[in-house]
Amino acid sequence: MTFARMWSDLLPVGRAGDGGYRRFAWSAEDQVLREWFAGEASVRGLDLVTDRAGNQWAWWGAPDATPGVVTGSHLDSVPGGGAFDGPLGVISAFAALDLLRERGIQPARPLGIANFVDEEGARFGVACAGSRLITGALDADRARGLRDADGGTLADALSRAGRDPSALGRDDEALRRIASFVELHVEQGRGLVHTGDAVGVGRMIWPHGRWRVELRGEANHAGTTPLADRRDPMLDLAGLLRRVRVAAVQAGALATVGKLQVDPNGVNAIPSRVTAWLDVRAESESAVHGVLAALADYAPDQDSWTPVTMFDADLADTVADALGGSPRLSTGAGHDAGILAAAGIPTAMIFVRNPSGISHAPAEDAEEADCLAGVDALAAALERLLA
Amino acid sequence: MTFARMWSDLLPVGRAGDGGYRRFAWSAEDQVLREWFAGEASVRGLDLVTDRAGNQWAWWGAPDATPGVVTGSHLDSVPGGGAFDGPLGVISAFAALDLLRERGIQPARPLGIANFVDEEGARFGVACAGSRLITGALDADRARGLRDADGGTLADALSRAGRDPSALGRDDEALRRIASFVELHVEQGRGLVHTGDAVGVGRMIWPHGRWRVELRGEANHAGTTPLADRRDPMLDLAGLLRRVRVAAVQAGALATVGKLQVDPNGVNAIPSRVTAWLDVRAESESAVHGVLAALADYAPDQDSWTPVTMFDADLADTVADALGGSPRLSTGAGHDAGILAAAGIPTAMIFVRNPSGISHAPAEDAEEADCLAGVDALAAALERLLA
Repeated sequence: MTFARMWSDLLPVGRAGDGGYRRFAWSAEDQVLREWFAGEASVRGLDLVTDRAGNQWAWWGAPDATPGVVTGSHLDSVPGGGAFDGPLGVISAFAALDLLRERGIQPARPLGIANFVDEEGARFGVACAGSRLITGALDADRARGLRDADGGTLADALSRAGRDPSALGRDDEALRRIASFVELHVEQGRGLVHTGDAVGVGRMIWPHGRWRVELRGEANHAGTTPLADRRDPMLDLAGLLRRVRVAAVQAGALATVGKLQVDPNGVNAIPSRVTAWLDVRAESESAVHGVLAALADYAPDQDSWTPVTMFDADLADTVADALGGSPRLSTGAGHDAGILAAAGIPTAMIFVRNPSGISHAPAEDAEEADCLAGVDALAAALERLLA
Repeated sequence: MTFARMWSDLLPVGRAGDGGYRRFAWSAEDQVLREWFAGEASVRGLDLVTDRAGNQWAWWGAPDATPGVVTGSHLDSVPGGGAFDGPLGVISAFAALDLLRERGIQPARPLGIANFVDEEGARFGVACAGSRLITGALDADRARGLRDADGGTLADALSRAGRDPSALGRDDEALRRIASFVELHVEQGRGLVHTGDAVGVGRMIWPHGRWRVELRGEANHAGTTPLADRRDPMLDLAGLLRRVRVAAVQAGALATVGKLQVDPNGVNAIPSRVTAWLDVRAESESAVHGVLAALADYAPDQDSWTPVTMFDADLADTVADALGGSPRLSTGAGHDAGILAAAGIPTAMIFVRNPSGISHAPAEDAEEADCLAGVDALAAALERLLA
């Protein structure tokens, strides 16, 4: 069947020996994924449109006359990511469109399928860059100057991928075409395991932010500097790592140090500096602030902040009704759906059960039966919205 | 004067904006330093010989008939290193030779000045690679396969530098020419600050080793994984960093974690693995073992081990007498002199006072008067040894 065929098309792209994926925006792997998307649009006779940021849109019907219902997700990954985060939403979108056509549905509105570029921000550091650019939440000049780990800019990467960096910017034409957006996504927790449901409907995205902590020391020779004369930032790091966990438990928040940079990072050198990146999220903004207050001694520097995002209540009700009533879930993960919601577009999310709750890792998984239930749910929701 | 001129020749080579040096073996900077060495040999009419490992030797007299007295050090640096560690010994060697000639000394033996390649091991991970190769302590096949941070091998780097990688190996011809070796080096501690002397003589190099600790976790999404479900290796890292310091204090040893690798090192990913590199040194092997015993839970994996190295007692006495009696110092730092001593060559070291004790960092320093006292001391020692 088509769902399985699309899934096996994507499985080998950017896959490492340990099963983890590396599908960074505007990389060679990303180009393969973009061509795959264009191919799926083409075999279905959909019109392929690429917006100013490079997001791909496959349209059934003409969205310039009547704004359409859009579904989809992204195809890029974090380093060492799983197979489902992103691709499940894009494959399910095509599969749901196939179901609607098989059932002979004649939509009263256009249906669009989206592939948002650079949702993970794994290469250039800004998550949901594609949706942020077209909504104006990410400034085009700032975006062009973002650098990857090799020091190359996004502008260079766009040029090498055959795109014009000067085209970046808010895209009102793309936005006007979206009457509503429904993103299907693998759950990144075990909420649906606890309720016993294959699918659920999103309620809100937690407020979340990123901070950077610089721990300064004094570089010196590891073999000759007495312990009493050292200013070793690794000891401060030990304190910070413990304090982050304690603060998260006390505030009822999630707080993570997932990234470190040690300078100069030599085996026989006491470091001159350790930089730690801190990710904090919680159901309430006050809980996030509670974590930061407990870390004030470390003078954390804010890199990004996203307030709480509520999905559209009416749209969520419509989707939940189409699913025959289903649990509502909040999530700590950011999504393009959240960016569009913040830009005033009615937006909903459908989550598919994840047995382990693991995401952003090779063990990320979903049962095939649950994925197919997700396609059914998405098709049912789209049928109502297109009527 | 010549000393200051040589110093100012070298100051700009591989210097970063913060004053730290990056002079890695077989890099473009290293080629400049090697050409400088060849130039200094040439203007003095010394015979330049390059051995199988690429170490440079500048000879006054013919060492094949009578083995010679050798002095010198290295010109490479750690990342972000200081100006003195290495170059002070090479510049002082040329300056001492100049002094001997000015005084009309007619040596009874040849005098050699050495520039050992890759003493710091900053690029390929093996310290004192040049002296280890010619003494056979480092296997040529293993050396050719060593990789730098960009994944290139030492064999590739040698080829690009115009050298034949197949030439690497134990070099008995080079070793036979060395009757004794005296290395002058900036002190990497404050022993001479405490005794109030400009120069001192080495007694021994502490036993030292490197270990690697792997902390395993479970990769997962930082925004969605409940704290209770996490296996976050950063918490184990916090424990390890604290335990290393406590173990070092209790054992009377130096122990340092200077290098970390986090996988996948993403801001919003709980790491799957943190690797920490551990450097331990002490005056006694039992103190080193004490630190390792306290860390046994972490199953440290040994990367390298160098037993205690005693410098030649008679040679040290001769050097100390020439200096008019001077303090004896032990050091935790490895040196080419230690590698030659372990290979059975009578070896001594002269240390020059370092006001802050800081080394392997831009703040590494020595007063000009102390450097000139070092040159005088080296010349006096060489005069006795050459008689």
